[in-house]
Amino acid sequence: MLVGLQRVIGDHLTAIVNTGDDTTMYDVHVSPDVDIVTYWLAGIADEARGWGIRGDTFEVIRGLSELGLETWFSLGDRDFATCLFRTERLRAGDRLSAITDDIRRHLGVPARILPMSDDRVATHIVTRDGRTLEFQEYFVKERCAPEVAEIQFAGIEHAAPADGVLDAIERSERVVVCPSNPLLSIAPILALDGVRGALRSHPRVVAVSPIVGGAALKGPADRLLKASGRDASASAVASMYDDFVNVFVIDEADGEEAAKVEAMGMDVIVTRTVMADGSVSERLARELLA
Amino acid sequence: MLVGLQRVIGDHLTAIVNTGDDTTMYDVHVSPDVDIVTYWLAGIADEARGWGIRGDTFEVIRGLSELGLETWFSLGDRDFATCLFRTERLRAGDRLSAITDDIRRHLGVPARILPMSDDRVATHIVTRDGRTLEFQEYFVKERCAPEVAEIQFAGIEHAAPADGVLDAIERSERVVVCPSNPLLSIAPILALDGVRGALRSHPRVVAVSPIVGGAALKGPADRLLKASGRDASASAVASMYDDFVNVFVIDEADGEEAAKVEAMGMDVIVTRTVMADGSVSERLARELLA
Repeated sequence: MLVGLQRVIGDHLTAIVNTGDDTTMYDVHVSPDVDIVTYWLAGIADEARGWGIRGDTFEVIRGLSELGLETWFSLGDRDFATCLFRTERLRAGDRLSAITDDIRRHLGVPARILPMSDDRVATHIVTRDGRTLEFQEYFVKERCAPEVAEIQFAGIEHAAPADGVLDAIERSERVVVCPSNPLLSIAPILALDGVRGALRSHPRVVAVSPIVGGAALKGPADRLLKASGRDASASAVASMYDDFVNVFVIDEADGEEAAKVEAMGMDVIVTRTVMADGSVSERLARELLA
Repeated sequence: MLVGLQRVIGDHLTAIVNTGDDTTMYDVHVSPDVDIVTYWLAGIADEARGWGIRGDTFEVIRGLSELGLETWFSLGDRDFATCLFRTERLRAGDRLSAITDDIRRHLGVPARILPMSDDRVATHIVTRDGRTLEFQEYFVKERCAPEVAEIQFAGIEHAAPADGVLDAIERSERVVVCPSNPLLSIAPILALDGVRGALRSHPRVVAVSPIVGGAALKGPADRLLKASGRDASASAVASMYDDFVNVFVIDEADGEEAAKVEAMGMDVIVTRTVMADGSVSERLARELLA
């Protein structure tokens, strides 16, 4: 979605990105959502795999594994360099948002990329069998297998939106809530002090459903929606955003959901939302911005 | 030399290794001498280059460079993994000697590898033009170009030999001082409290000259000897060891030096010392141990 938006509006785009998935691995600060957004917008993402850099090697991980370390969290060597660069700068006292900006500039990304907060927020997954897992343990190590009882954002009550986040929302002509996981990737951003209010005050907030035909195209959004007592449907996602979204975009496969969403007071666009490549996302971006 | 010795006596070999070259690069603790010894003994050293691991990739460094970092100190990705492993363990409070032992075991090295000290010693180079350089700045960044006025081992007065160093010397049947740089690689070990005394008390200390035909086969030993007011000769090296070495080994090319060294009270062996491959070093090792 962001690739399409960047194609259309270039450096007028600001991406506000979840940092709840951030963690420390192999002594470096890993910021998976910020990095994958950066790599996509730099045109170097491993699109097939969905994380990391295309053609990256994995020698650091292989070396650590040979030395007896647990290496269930894979990280390419170039990707590692990004994390190491960030870690050095964080240790020197720089803010995550400033470092992120530096990285995207060095990688030639026109859009501004804003981590949601410079404060530490950590997504924790409480499982039905009573364990509390760090997000990456749930997501990578246990491959989303455990039944989820609760999702917690540790530190969220003391976290402020990063400088520029509220301002970007308030000054933007249009806000697009990307078809990202509503419970894992959008919820932490909305939970930050002032964000939801800024979105409510904004007259042009468009959201794209991450659920198509009752399933998430990627990741565990459908299962998590069900685990939270909701349907795995576009309208269930719409109901989570109905206090601030003006236009909700659903896929052609979900035409029958339109009435339900309209009944929540939102305008609905029914269109092709499955972004198989950059040209589809560009077309969708133009539609959202029209 | 160590490869040859390990071939002959296997796990009876203990290598005591300089740590004055250690430094922090890219947020990891780099221990160049310890690592290259480990890699040689594991059979994975990049023999042509003289540092790092054969076939290693350099993607982390390339990534850091793309992000705008100075990367004059090259470090392969597998090599980086070694340093990262060490750094994590050091941060967790482990001793360098314990970590080094763990690394060599994981890499299948039969010999024991002992860093000279678990305390921090840093080799500094004072140049003729009045600058004080960290060793790697002198060695790698400035490629040994500056004229050297003085070599300092910062921290040496508070550094103790690592556990096992004095014991290894005292209990060993024979001590071999390898043909390493006497001013940079051997001197810091000798400067540690108790080491020189233990060597003096040992009846069978053999040293191999690192100078052949007036030149160092590798590195700046010849230039540093001259800068320190000595000749670049086997006998000049012998004179630095004459209080503790019993047998001094010089190359066939330096036969005319034998009398000078014998006059210092040492026995002399004249033999082929240029170790073009493992079989030559094995032959030399057998000769030293005979």
